[in-house]
Amino acid sequence: MNKNRLEAFSDGVLAIIVTIMVLEMKAPRGAEWDNLSELIPKFISYLFIFIMVWIYWNNHHHLFQTVHKVNGKVLLANGFLLFCLSLQPFVTAWMGENHFARNPVILMAGVLLLSAIAYTILTFTLIKLHGSDSVLRKAIESDKKGKISTLAYVIAIPLAFIHPLISCGIFGFVAIMWLIPDTRIEKALKK
Amino acid sequence: MNKNRLEAFSDGVLAIIVTIMVLEMKAPRGAEWDNLSELIPKFISYLFIFIMVWIYWNNHHHLFQTVHKVNGKVLLANGFLLFCLSLQPFVTAWMGENHFARNPVILMAGVLLLSAIAYTILTFTLIKLHGSDSVLRKAIESDKKGKISTLAYVIAIPLAFIHPLISCGIFGFVAIMWLIPDTRIEKALKK
Amino acid sequence: MNKNRLEAFSDGVLAIIVTIMVLEMKAPRGAEWDNLSELIPKFISYLFIFIMVWIYWNNHHHLFQTVHKVNGKVLLANGFLLFCLSLQPFVTAWMGENHFARNPVILMAGVLLLSAIAYTILTFTLIKLHGSDSVLRKAIESDKKGKISTLAYVIAIPLAFIHPLISCGIFGFVAIMWLIPDTRIEKALKK
Amino acid sequence: MNKNRLEAFSDGVLAIIVTIMVLEMKAPRGAEWDNLSELIPKFISYLFIFIMVWIYWNNHHHLFQTVHKVNGKVLLANGFLLFCLSLQPFVTAWMGENHFARNPVILMAGVLLLSAIAYTILTFTLIKLHGSDSVLRKAIESDKKGKISTLAYVIAIPLAFIHPLISCGIFGFVAIMWLIPDTRIEKALKK
Repeated sequence: MNKNRLEAFSDGVLAIIVTIMVLEMKAPRGAEWDNLSELIPKFISYLFIFIMVWIYWNNHHHLFQTVHKVNGKVLLANGFLLFCLSLQPFVTAWMGENHFARNPVILMAGVLLLSAIAYTILTFTLIKLHGSDSVLRKAIESDKKGKISTLAYVIAIPLAFIHPLISCGIFGFVAIMWLIPDTRIEKALKK
Repeated sequence: MNKNRLEAFSDGVLAIIVTIMVLEMKAPRGAEWDNLSELIPKFISYLFIFIMVWIYWNNHHHLFQTVHKVNGKVLLANGFLLFCLSLQPFVTAWMGENHFARNPVILMAGVLLLSAIAYTILTFTLIKLHGSDSVLRKAIESDKKGKISTLAYVIAIPLAFIHPLISCGIFGFVAIMWLIPDTRIEKALKK
Repeated sequence: MNKNRLEAFSDGVLAIIVTIMVLEMKAPRGAEWDNLSELIPKFISYLFIFIMVWIYWNNHHHLFQTVHKVNGKVLLANGFLLFCLSLQPFVTAWMGENHFARNPVILMAGVLLLSAIAYTILTFTLIKLHGSDSVLRKAIESDKKGKISTLAYVIAIPLAFIHPLISCGIFGFVAIMWLIPDTRIEKALKK
Repeated sequence: MNKNRLEAFSDGVLAIIVTIMVLEMKAPRGAEWDNLSELIPKFISYLFIFIMVWIYWNNHHHLFQTVHKVNGKVLLANGFLLFCLSLQPFVTAWMGENHFARNPVILMAGVLLLSAIAYTILTFTLIKLHGSDSVLRKAIESDKKGKISTLAYVIAIPLAFIHPLISCGIFGFVAIMWLIPDTRIEKALKK
């Protein structure tokens, strides 16, 4: 089965997710800079979601570069990933509107963890389909970034009980780690 | 005529339909878990629509894997299918906001039935174009799942008069049946 | 220059235009059939826009089947067409909310006429690029449907002063005429 | 790495950005022409954003015509460009609702300047990847339009303190300059 439509559908859904948050940013009434400052939490939320979706799109792009076919299980795993990602704008909005209170931050950590797990499931479904000798298998072998992210989100949940901003710091750290272009798969493809 | 644009346009429309419902989930004001619980019906509605659209996208994807050309009638049948699917978010929202009252559940059964019929029409239009010896024809021969679904939606309408939740149970049963990856067409393609 | 991205961008914009109207259909509060009947004008508006956009997508699809390259002027003509089409949901909503009063119907005729003109400009820009011996040139030679549509929209403007519903009847007539699959280009391609 | 998905994702995001503004144009209550005139500022804002996004899409299209591969840095630069462009509808709405007051106009100039810088970064990232002998390098050599645009946006910021409409005039001038089809890259490809 061809991978093109899976990519096209994923691109469509991700493009909409990324722009849901900017739709929420309504122009304020007054023309003063102060009127704009009310929107700063919404702007930060939008920036965060834009970066998160961009990272997932980027990784998704790298992942499917290495594979040549998909099956029903891959479609299912991909659907689950898209569902998890589609919850991020909602949870980010809840977190932003409550000034990073404990409960929304815990839910955010939960949704980010679920997204990371969904991505891992997708990766393993693809490896199972392509065999242990595949380019993908070798590229992913020592998936340090993936393991650090998952671990970070797990730790972020209890840490939110000490102070929610510690967890938010972790979310930011993971995002910055992924923003640095990933050369792992690019190198494996060249070999 | 080439099938690529029909696939691209369908992917675009389906990607939007799938995300209409998540746009409806507005972040609640308070930061307590109780504030979140008000959104559970909307969340279930979103989950249901996501699964339904994913199933149709999945089947649509399988269907067009087996064909190589389209004509004006296929475009028309595909347009009718997209229109039926685009009504599902609206009816699901009506059903969810009225706590699964009888009338919305009957309308839901009607729209689901209409979507199933539209999909069947699309299948037959494609078979007619490709001839009775086509891969598609053989793959679809004993379309058990399709027949069960259509029958289930027909039965769901009178059963809603006994109790609407029986019909809702049927909707859930059909969705789960389709979520299990379909190997019918995959096998036919391998032969 | 390659035509693929022009098609992809157009598909994206058209997919959004087609679903703008369904976003406007909010679920009514009560669970009675009467509550639903309030939405009938919005439903008819949505159905009309869905059909119009589908027709333009369909014709756009046929048109670009016959061509192999695009230039800057084609991109400009295509952008103008998309802009005209993007105004249709707004004008349809204005027409529907005012129960087909004279002014909204006149504006509707104007926007439909502008869209038809934009499509004609796009066609001629493509013919100019591909030369008078092209498949497209021959296929379009006796563009009866296009001429009838343009003429019908022109006539619909003064007729709205007699009664707006006459103009609405004309809009419906043109839509039905186009819904019948167009075999003109399909035949020319076969030769 | 393949450029197709970068193009598809960009097309999806741009298609949504272009239609955000038309979603804001709600049908007025009355059926008189006067009721429509209230929407003129929103219409002008929509027209401006449509033209701006079309120009960027057009240039993006030309740019990627000349390249055959992308890397992680290109994906990052492209993501930054899309983020800048996604802020334009919001700022345009703020500007329109405050009748082109000084502060919104300054912010508009800032966002337009940022978008121009993001586009320049994307161009240089692509040139660095493809080498100084590439088609792209030669085509872009004397990028007069790009330099004039950036300079114009820089000048528009202080000029807004004299009168905001001078800056708005500059925005319009730059838009019209780009609307004229760009033959630079087309010619370089022919050689």
